[in-house]
Amino acid sequence: MERQDGQDRGAGPLNQPAAIADPIETDALIVGAGPVGLFQAFQLGLLEISCHIVDALPAAGGQCVALYGGKPIYDIPGTPVTSGRDLAQSLLQQVAPFKPQFHFGEQVATLARQPDERLLLTTSAGKAFLAKTVFIAAGVGAFVPKRIAVEGIERFEGTSLFYHPDSLDRFAGQAVVVNGGDDVALETAIALTGTAAQVTLVHRRDGFQADEATVAAMRRLVAQGKLAFKVGQPGAFDGKQLQIVTPDATTLDLPLDALIACLGISPRLGPIADWGLELERKQVPVDTEKYETRERGVFAVGDINTYPGKKKLIVCGFHEATLAAWGATAIVFPGKAVPLQYTTTSTRLHELLGVRKA
Amino acid sequence: MERQDGQDRGAGPLNQPAAIADPIETDALIVGAGPVGLFQAFQLGLLEISCHIVDALPAAGGQCVALYGGKPIYDIPGTPVTSGRDLAQSLLQQVAPFKPQFHFGEQVATLARQPDERLLLTTSAGKAFLAKTVFIAAGVGAFVPKRIAVEGIERFEGTSLFYHPDSLDRFAGQAVVVNGGDDVALETAIALTGTAAQVTLVHRRDGFQADEATVAAMRRLVAQGKLAFKVGQPGAFDGKQLQIVTPDATTLDLPLDALIACLGISPRLGPIADWGLELERKQVPVDTEKYETRERGVFAVGDINTYPGKKKLIVCGFHEATLAAWGATAIVFPGKAVPLQYTTTSTRLHELLGVRKA
Repeated sequence: MERQDGQDRGAGPLNQPAAIADPIETDALIVGAGPVGLFQAFQLGLLEISCHIVDALPAAGGQCVALYGGKPIYDIPGTPVTSGRDLAQSLLQQVAPFKPQFHFGEQVATLARQPDERLLLTTSAGKAFLAKTVFIAAGVGAFVPKRIAVEGIERFEGTSLFYHPDSLDRFAGQAVVVNGGDDVALETAIALTGTAAQVTLVHRRDGFQADEATVAAMRRLVAQGKLAFKVGQPGAFDGKQLQIVTPDATTLDLPLDALIACLGISPRLGPIADWGLELERKQVPVDTEKYETRERGVFAVGDINTYPGKKKLIVCGFHEATLAAWGATAIVFPGKAVPLQYTTTSTRLHELLGVRKA
Repeated sequence: MERQDGQDRGAGPLNQPAAIADPIETDALIVGAGPVGLFQAFQLGLLEISCHIVDALPAAGGQCVALYGGKPIYDIPGTPVTSGRDLAQSLLQQVAPFKPQFHFGEQVATLARQPDERLLLTTSAGKAFLAKTVFIAAGVGAFVPKRIAVEGIERFEGTSLFYHPDSLDRFAGQAVVVNGGDDVALETAIALTGTAAQVTLVHRRDGFQADEATVAAMRRLVAQGKLAFKVGQPGAFDGKQLQIVTPDATTLDLPLDALIACLGISPRLGPIADWGLELERKQVPVDTEKYETRERGVFAVGDINTYPGKKKLIVCGFHEATLAAWGATAIVFPGKAVPLQYTTTSTRLHELLGVRKA
């Protein structure tokens, strides 16, 4: 990935690419498979613009599923109540006739203008796309586990420091410290008491943001001496010992084989900040006619964009995606006037949607 | 209703009102109970702004129900398929917790600024509202029956000329001509053969835009001599005789007691054109920050507004209504910063919506 040097990445040109072998050519590439990215694909489909969708998460839905999958949402128009997970499912079903091609578990790393005006994008998994138009629907960024704020600690990641590990198998027989106070942290600590040699839970306070029953189970294990609990915040880590600072400002050293941190996940703008797009407080300014950035053919929709009056609401992202799709027609079908058709009456749209009159 | 004289109603001030007794005071008045008007009430409700809604039609749903109630709609985000009627029902259910007060079957006739900055509106039913904010969600206008295009014919309306009559009782024993070629026209003609002395159906061609079974029933009655059918278009009418022009350009005089026209319904902007708002090709220009017209506190959302990039799509109207509701907060709650809350997490919004965590 090419980076521009210096602080001011505001108004620079898109970074120049290295040569990439065999890029996937596409009319449109959507960055982000949250609700707005999915509806973007649907609106492009109605306009007969095919697309690929890249998302850092392992499945569709974005923060809607990752952060509040089971929680209710009441303000999707025409849907009095749904959940993040159900909304993502409905949108996947709605876009299905257009067969968008998903690329999950990878992040778009670079974006660069080509001499023929197309946009070359590369991903963290080594894929490349050559796209006529790009739709950044990346929300507040890619969701990654929150890191422990101790200088230099990143060098232990993968050896003695682990964030939200997929499996706990490797910790069997080890002395493990779990840092965190939410359901994931508590469940991890509880699970480890069955396999690890020694488990210590560290949280900044003696109070938890977790399910009552999980907290009770944890406290039982502490009472039984199967789980140690220490109040404090990480102060230093050398790969073999975690030093924590307790509320009374004393320090405590915890020898360990592995430190597992479950501090929640939070969004990071990541590589998007390096694409040479103008940014205002980590958001991409767009017009309100096409929701296009200052780079022709690069649109930004949903929580990542900004314009006068912007509200970070899904309903607004749906509108932005709609006008952005129309904005793309001038680039994908140059010189062609595309008429507005209604899904209620257009036989062409019925054909595309795969529906027939009874 | 006060009218401004002359053609140029573009940029004039709002017309001045006569004194009106006992207006209903409200934070917001919504003109139009179509999908966008209903969602406008929902978004206002989330912001704790109460409203009244006026619509010329007898029930909620606007053109969505009146024109394509049973037809499928595929592009409401998160709803892979619905119908105009079902969409209106879902939106009514969604807005129900906020108890908007509906005033059906009446049209807003006048709109005028008061000295205290509020807006005084009067309806065709003689009601008056004193509103802090007004949301015009009137679509392409109020839906009214299409008129016969014969000069001066309007003076017979209600005596010998009837558009879409509610009841056919008054035509018993009469010589009746029914003009039109859709289901309503054919069903009217068929029904009248049971009670009228003589029934003639007039349509511009020998072909109908109607249900096959209805057309067959009509043709049987014609074959039996119980219904006359003439191909032609109205050329002149004097209250006692309809002259029609046939396809071979000859004329034919049809004596009658009553002429019933069923030519479909079509939208008319109506009194809105007289409110002193700027109009561009029958649409109201708005900004894209609050979807406010050039008149402070008067917002326009959905098909009736225009701005660069405008597409007449329901999904766009939903967004416009959302930002317009936010635009109203500065007027309804002056000096108060209203925070953005999410329906997923805000206990205050859960209280307003009448939902509780399980």
